[in-house]
Amino acid sequence: MIQVGIIGANGYTGGELLKILNNHPHVEVVAATSRKFDGVPIYKVHPHLRDLELEFKKIEPGDIAADLVFTATPHGASMNIVPPIIEKGIKVIDLSGDYRFDDLDVYEKWYGLKQTNPLESVYGLPEVFREDIQKTDLVANPGCFPTGAILACLPLAAEKLVDRFIIDAKTGVSGAGIKPSETTMFTNCSDNVIPYLVTSHRHAPEIQEKLSRYGDVKVSFTPHLVPVIRGIFSTVHTFPVEDVTSSYVKELYDDFYEGEPFVRVLDVGEIPRLSSVRGSNYCYIGSFDSDENGRLVIASSIDNLVKGASGQAVHNMNIMFGFDEIEALDMLGLHP
Amino acid sequence: MIQVGIIGANGYTGGELLKILNNHPHVEVVAATSRKFDGVPIYKVHPHLRDLELEFKKIEPGDIAADLVFTATPHGASMNIVPPIIEKGIKVIDLSGDYRFDDLDVYEKWYGLKQTNPLESVYGLPEVFREDIQKTDLVANPGCFPTGAILACLPLAAEKLVDRFIIDAKTGVSGAGIKPSETTMFTNCSDNVIPYLVTSHRHAPEIQEKLSRYGDVKVSFTPHLVPVIRGIFSTVHTFPVEDVTSSYVKELYDDFYEGEPFVRVLDVGEIPRLSSVRGSNYCYIGSFDSDENGRLVIASSIDNLVKGASGQAVHNMNIMFGFDEIEALDMLGLHP
Amino acid sequence: MIQVGIIGANGYTGGELLKILNNHPHVEVVAATSRKFDGVPIYKVHPHLRDLELEFKKIEPGDIAADLVFTATPHGASMNIVPPIIEKGIKVIDLSGDYRFDDLDVYEKWYGLKQTNPLESVYGLPEVFREDIQKTDLVANPGCFPTGAILACLPLAAEKLVDRFIIDAKTGVSGAGIKPSETTMFTNCSDNVIPYLVTSHRHAPEIQEKLSRYGDVKVSFTPHLVPVIRGIFSTVHTFPVEDVTSSYVKELYDDFYEGEPFVRVLDVGEIPRLSSVRGSNYCYIGSFDSDENGRLVIASSIDNLVKGASGQAVHNMNIMFGFDEIEALDMLGLHP
Amino acid sequence: MIQVGIIGANGYTGGELLKILNNHPHVEVVAATSRKFDGVPIYKVHPHLRDLELEFKKIEPGDIAADLVFTATPHGASMNIVPPIIEKGIKVIDLSGDYRFDDLDVYEKWYGLKQTNPLESVYGLPEVFREDIQKTDLVANPGCFPTGAILACLPLAAEKLVDRFIIDAKTGVSGAGIKPSETTMFTNCSDNVIPYLVTSHRHAPEIQEKLSRYGDVKVSFTPHLVPVIRGIFSTVHTFPVEDVTSSYVKELYDDFYEGEPFVRVLDVGEIPRLSSVRGSNYCYIGSFDSDENGRLVIASSIDNLVKGASGQAVHNMNIMFGFDEIEALDMLGLHP
Repeated sequence: MIQVGIIGANGYTGGELLKILNNHPHVEVVAATSRKFDGVPIYKVHPHLRDLELEFKKIEPGDIAADLVFTATPHGASMNIVPPIIEKGIKVIDLSGDYRFDDLDVYEKWYGLKQTNPLESVYGLPEVFREDIQKTDLVANPGCFPTGAILACLPLAAEKLVDRFIIDAKTGVSGAGIKPSETTMFTNCSDNVIPYLVTSHRHAPEIQEKLSRYGDVKVSFTPHLVPVIRGIFSTVHTFPVEDVTSSYVKELYDDFYEGEPFVRVLDVGEIPRLSSVRGSNYCYIGSFDSDENGRLVIASSIDNLVKGASGQAVHNMNIMFGFDEIEALDMLGLHP
Repeated sequence: MIQVGIIGANGYTGGELLKILNNHPHVEVVAATSRKFDGVPIYKVHPHLRDLELEFKKIEPGDIAADLVFTATPHGASMNIVPPIIEKGIKVIDLSGDYRFDDLDVYEKWYGLKQTNPLESVYGLPEVFREDIQKTDLVANPGCFPTGAILACLPLAAEKLVDRFIIDAKTGVSGAGIKPSETTMFTNCSDNVIPYLVTSHRHAPEIQEKLSRYGDVKVSFTPHLVPVIRGIFSTVHTFPVEDVTSSYVKELYDDFYEGEPFVRVLDVGEIPRLSSVRGSNYCYIGSFDSDENGRLVIASSIDNLVKGASGQAVHNMNIMFGFDEIEALDMLGLHP
Repeated sequence: MIQVGIIGANGYTGGELLKILNNHPHVEVVAATSRKFDGVPIYKVHPHLRDLELEFKKIEPGDIAADLVFTATPHGASMNIVPPIIEKGIKVIDLSGDYRFDDLDVYEKWYGLKQTNPLESVYGLPEVFREDIQKTDLVANPGCFPTGAILACLPLAAEKLVDRFIIDAKTGVSGAGIKPSETTMFTNCSDNVIPYLVTSHRHAPEIQEKLSRYGDVKVSFTPHLVPVIRGIFSTVHTFPVEDVTSSYVKELYDDFYEGEPFVRVLDVGEIPRLSSVRGSNYCYIGSFDSDENGRLVIASSIDNLVKGASGQAVHNMNIMFGFDEIEALDMLGLHP
Repeated sequence: MIQVGIIGANGYTGGELLKILNNHPHVEVVAATSRKFDGVPIYKVHPHLRDLELEFKKIEPGDIAADLVFTATPHGASMNIVPPIIEKGIKVIDLSGDYRFDDLDVYEKWYGLKQTNPLESVYGLPEVFREDIQKTDLVANPGCFPTGAILACLPLAAEKLVDRFIIDAKTGVSGAGIKPSETTMFTNCSDNVIPYLVTSHRHAPEIQEKLSRYGDVKVSFTPHLVPVIRGIFSTVHTFPVEDVTSSYVKELYDDFYEGEPFVRVLDVGEIPRLSSVRGSNYCYIGSFDSDENGRLVIASSIDNLVKGASGQAVHNMNIMFGFDEIEALDMLGLHP
């Protein structure tokens, strides 16, 4: 049994962490912090967590006694919160962008922030960095878009079959967080499709950096807000450097993800539905026959709050502490 | 470990049963029948159940060897399917309306069917009939609307505080089943509110019969289709025979449902959201201050496919076989 | 040709007024005021009004030169804005609640505001007050819920067939206005049904006062937020003092609304869909066979931004200035 | 005043034609045919058209006496229905794919049909073929996807700046027609994003053929079903053959579409929302700064039932008969 703290527990990813960890036999949540809701019962903010007898507390990061802390804090805040925790010998899984980049110049350019407290970290995509995750004290949990996009692109990049990815992503509104804004209003999102940061989203360089481990690749990325609560659907348009058949591609993916507990490679032509993975930690990946112009399409679906955030964070925790990887994460998708 | 069969496993309630039972440590699903999909892998119909290595089979009901059979079959069909199973000494939980009514005349009037094979059965609402459920071989699983409505009305009826209930229910579209129809088209349901069988829905007499155990009550019921996938929200308008305070009502409900694993009585004024119970077996019940005309409002929320169907069926199974009541049913709601 | 000003033009009702008046051959909009968006082109806030070559202006109410001013301003603000305009001899149609009540005590109790500048006004429901509207300088435009509810109840109240109305209303999210809030977030509203002010909404006394012209009636009212952009669906549950047949009721409504340009009485059993009236100024009213307990259900649908606000305001304007009543309002519903 | 017939008036495009033509001062609809609904009043199928005193009739195409016939009939059916009408000297606007292709081999390959009755026709995209439309007796109304996609790509193709277009389209569900199917069920579409015919949709060759007038281009196209009733959002990813600035692109589009009544070129970075064009005949086009990899994104929005079908058909009619081009088409978008 380990003791775990969650900093910034009043957001959607905080709520999802609390929900998942509630089912974890080896975890006790000892602190769920929130500045805004100090002393408020959890269920007042997360109405589905009515049985959790826990209150939000305003606690200074340095005052948390735990084996692991999840920092569900904004970009720029994490870099100040994480170091004092690490110094105390507590492991950290950070859900912000602050520790995701190998190249700090890229981080600073795209986030408009100076990384003042750099630390050694491991990018928490278990399908790629499992062994490093086992050994590290600081996991930088991947961004929601990068999770779905990288998993869709990875086998093609690793095989050096594709050096340019055009990723057209569609995301549910929960990805924008719990704070009300014009963007996230029902009247704005419903019955609409709204691209944003069309050619300048900071998840593009994150995807590019991680795919570039296998050689030069160019990533063009555009996210769209769609009238969906949870889920990211990534449509990846590629032009392989040589002709590939759909069965070859399917086999390539099957081999690459063999044994992965949360990746499912679908039959050729099968659609990775958002509903198939809703509420679950799965990433479904589908591949399709190439078109007449040599375009190969790969598509992936994830739940942005689970595999795209809190579920993946718990997966990382399971790896870091030697638990069964699927512990507390074996829920199936909510379809329909 | 018991062996279980599901007849009519290709519908939404069948899929939900398969999903829930997949997490049940004491259950092995030995048959999932479907006439239409004989030989087809489960995941072709239920894409979220990709890991279930099971195929639909066309099996005659009498040929299933199991300890328990769920009959997720239409009204009128169940009455022919259930008896031969019961005769073989297999327990049955029937999800149709065929065995729900004490008064067969009421059944025959509202369903337009002759009940040709009446059997002794117990109405599977654990909060009321738990002890009978333990002993019976045939549970008639309640209708989706009756589940949410009865739980909202019950303490008032039992206390003889109210003798007329006006129930205005709002249901998600999955309640209409997996078969396409004009009614369930996205273009019909989305951005719309559509009442149906406004004063003639057959769940009205079901609610009335069960509430009438405590004395004469009149139930007026109108369901509305709303643009929601899962969930039933029941708004119950009542005029208590004597003045009641909201704290009295809250206490009445607290007492009535004390210890119930799946009913949660909310604070006065707290809203029982559909998202709080989505994907879970909970029923949330809220009460509100009376208005100037002496109207008391009680509201409840359930997931129609879980507490309103398959989750409740598994709850009944757990009771029938002496398992922990919450086994495989401890999932929390999917909010947001 | 008359000159018209709109105070508070940056909200949803302001946008709808601008859109409707753009098609009016006898109206020139000379001012669209907004404190927040002074100098900003209209289309930056109302993206569908790209062709309107007009900017928001910050203008003091007293400085508008026009024949008519629409005040799309909040409750409490209107009572300070309207009098100086009226004093200049300009007609006003006020969309707030400030001038809707005959009984100021009721207003002050429910709005928690002192009406410091009472003025003689006419309640702008043309189906009832057409002749008074023709002669007044100040129309108090009805609330969105009262419009749909009163029209559904009126013939029964006038005929003294019903003295207690239980109105269960379902509203689209645009009714909450353009300002972001937790309530109106997509993640909150989508796939949910959320009642609010369950027994204490201030539209209840507005409905009650207007129906009480015909004798004592009691109105119980509960609104629900549903995942719909536009539209109010009102389900009215009543128990007539004597038995009535559905054909009698249908005839009663046909007679009552004969010749009304914007009310449509449907066939018995026909559903008044939100999509039938979406974007239009119609109110559809449906009636249904009574149930076994003598309950009669009437249902109505309106577009809350059109018949429930700006369309009705323009209808009032047409009456006040002697234009054809349907001028600029003859658009049909957007179905599907 | 001209007399007009609509063949296949019971579908969504038929309903939209009836609605638009109802507001046209120079058109009388003399026949609305339907095999299925012979003798049924229009409003039973199109509930928003309650005031139209017209019934569906089963009429043989050859028996319609009119100046113009809209054939809202399926691919394969139109080629048998259109010729006898043309022979009688009646003009036709065909909404199917049967007469859209210059190259019949392409048609036959992608539609799997033999075009047995080829006729000379003009592709009814007024922005390109206005002069030919004026003179022809047979207009082939463009497909819904091609309308939004071609308008987004056209200036770049005409300028020979781009020779490969990757079009990622998101469509509302009404595009699938009025007939219920698994695909169009609420439970399938809601909260989902579902690509279909991922690399094999027959609108791809239609787009390619029309853009190829300006030189060789390759079109890769993937449509996605999103939880939207009306609207097509097209995201066009391109890599111009030379560097272009966003202001250059904006100017190029401004010039190309100057004077066009239904195309609006937005400011650089402004989003063409579906709600801006909902219910209207507009196409909004937005352009964005190129990304670091030289990718230029253009996006367009249309209402698939209006500009993508019936509105464009009426626009073509207005051109063919010398009416004002915007007659009956000057409605603004329904936002929110």
